[in-house]
Amino acid sequence: MAEILRGKVVADKIKEKMVERIKKLNDKGIEPTLAIVRLGEDPSDISYEKGIIKSAEKLGIKTVIKEEEVSLKTEELVNIIEELNNDDKISGILVFRPLPKGIDEEVISKTISPEKDVDCMNPLNLAKIFEGDMSGFAPGTPKAAIEILINNNIDLEGKNVVVINRSLVVGKPLAMMLLEKNATVTICHSRTKDLDKITKDADIVMTALGRAKFLDEKYFNKDSIIIDIGVSMDEDGKMSGDVDFENVEDKVAKITPVPRGVGSVTNTVLLDNVVKGCEKRA
Amino acid sequence: MAEILRGKVVADKIKEKMVERIKKLNDKGIEPTLAIVRLGEDPSDISYEKGIIKSAEKLGIKTVIKEEEVSLKTEELVNIIEELNNDDKISGILVFRPLPKGIDEEVISKTISPEKDVDCMNPLNLAKIFEGDMSGFAPGTPKAAIEILINNNIDLEGKNVVVINRSLVVGKPLAMMLLEKNATVTICHSRTKDLDKITKDADIVMTALGRAKFLDEKYFNKDSIIIDIGVSMDEDGKMSGDVDFENVEDKVAKITPVPRGVGSVTNTVLLDNVVKGCEKRA
Repeated sequence: MAEILRGKVVADKIKEKMVERIKKLNDKGIEPTLAIVRLGEDPSDISYEKGIIKSAEKLGIKTVIKEEEVSLKTEELVNIIEELNNDDKISGILVFRPLPKGIDEEVISKTISPEKDVDCMNPLNLAKIFEGDMSGFAPGTPKAAIEILINNNIDLEGKNVVVINRSLVVGKPLAMMLLEKNATVTICHSRTKDLDKITKDADIVMTALGRAKFLDEKYFNKDSIIIDIGVSMDEDGKMSGDVDFENVEDKVAKITPVPRGVGSVTNTVLLDNVVKGCEKRA
Repeated sequence: MAEILRGKVVADKIKEKMVERIKKLNDKGIEPTLAIVRLGEDPSDISYEKGIIKSAEKLGIKTVIKEEEVSLKTEELVNIIEELNNDDKISGILVFRPLPKGIDEEVISKTISPEKDVDCMNPLNLAKIFEGDMSGFAPGTPKAAIEILINNNIDLEGKNVVVINRSLVVGKPLAMMLLEKNATVTICHSRTKDLDKITKDADIVMTALGRAKFLDEKYFNKDSIIIDIGVSMDEDGKMSGDVDFENVEDKVAKITPVPRGVGSVTNTVLLDNVVKGCEKRA
């Protein structure tokens, strides 16, 4: 049977260290504070927001919610963000995406101060990841995936890691972070041929295809370590990862479940960025 | 015998198209102009500069040389670059690197206007490459390597391409450009294990190790296409690529020589960027 790599265990470890760091900040009279900017009332945004507020409260991180109309103009949103940039009490800014069609996302990304850009929207923070400079803010999902490996003492040095995803928010930054850990990285995607051959040869497979249960035992070997970043609904409307978990569970070495895998770490990573931002400004 | 992919053939093809584009600009009374900023008199800088000026002249691209002291201060260099940014006659700015120790390269990189940054120094242009947005300026060496493939009608779609180099100026942007062409990309480096196994399985190997004649027949198969970006001196002080050319020449499908391979295309790619910059502003 594969070892199941649960997200909560990792999130708890990260939170434990955060509690100490937040205490130190509080001792100096500083309160880490996350500003959330939400346009409209998309149910998934609201549910995500509730999750973050709850996690933040438990840790002692303050949240400030800026709720605005979907019809907001780019310049108006720019003004709101600039106010948050200039507000010394705000440690981090999270703007929910995708933004409504009328908003120029590129302008907004560049408006968020790189020092408060905890969701890694600003291209300057993205460029840092590309440069291998981990002093900025890493995007949440790939950071969460890496944290699962690190916190389970899975060595990356010289390992062959396959990343199935080439998006700007997941696959590419993930590949850069893996290179930083001295892994050999193969980036696969929808046009990749003989994917099963490539993944079967790898030490670690990190997948964000978004196709429920697409990867079965054919794609892995008994030593495979699988980090399943994919989230989709299977035929029965049940949340599922890219990997056919039941099919591979007893045929690989380690695997993250979906749900309760990578997704359970992303909020924590975001909040960790808020504390990091606050520490930098302290 | 392998087909030899010579750089000059590719450079000439690119130049042919450039001549037409420059003519169109000239017809509008516009002269593409490259500003070269050089600090000190490093012989390799001066030799590089001469090569560019010669190529530029032949194409009808003007050059403006800003020769400054090695002791120049960061603020002084910033002022020079800002002047060039604001000068409508200048289409592109090339600052020779590495800069002297006293200069803050990060500040300089950000000072160069992204619209004139033909050598891709500004992190905003680098971020574009990362984003898969090819509307900006690509760095010369990886662009030259890709141009050799494209101009030899070597299809990249779904191909397994191994990049041996993870630097910010070569390996990483090259990987991003390859992904944009729908290749499956593996990024290898000094910590990679069983490199020979990985390269032998690949369709195309693009190497920038900088170790003379390091890769012999063991690393390739009869269908291998090799783009050798490495430049170093062998035991006899002769310029050599990463690949042991004589050893593999009759055992692979296609290979670029060193010299007269990728290096013969980089200047052309830089000048192509100057014309591109000029067209954008026209």
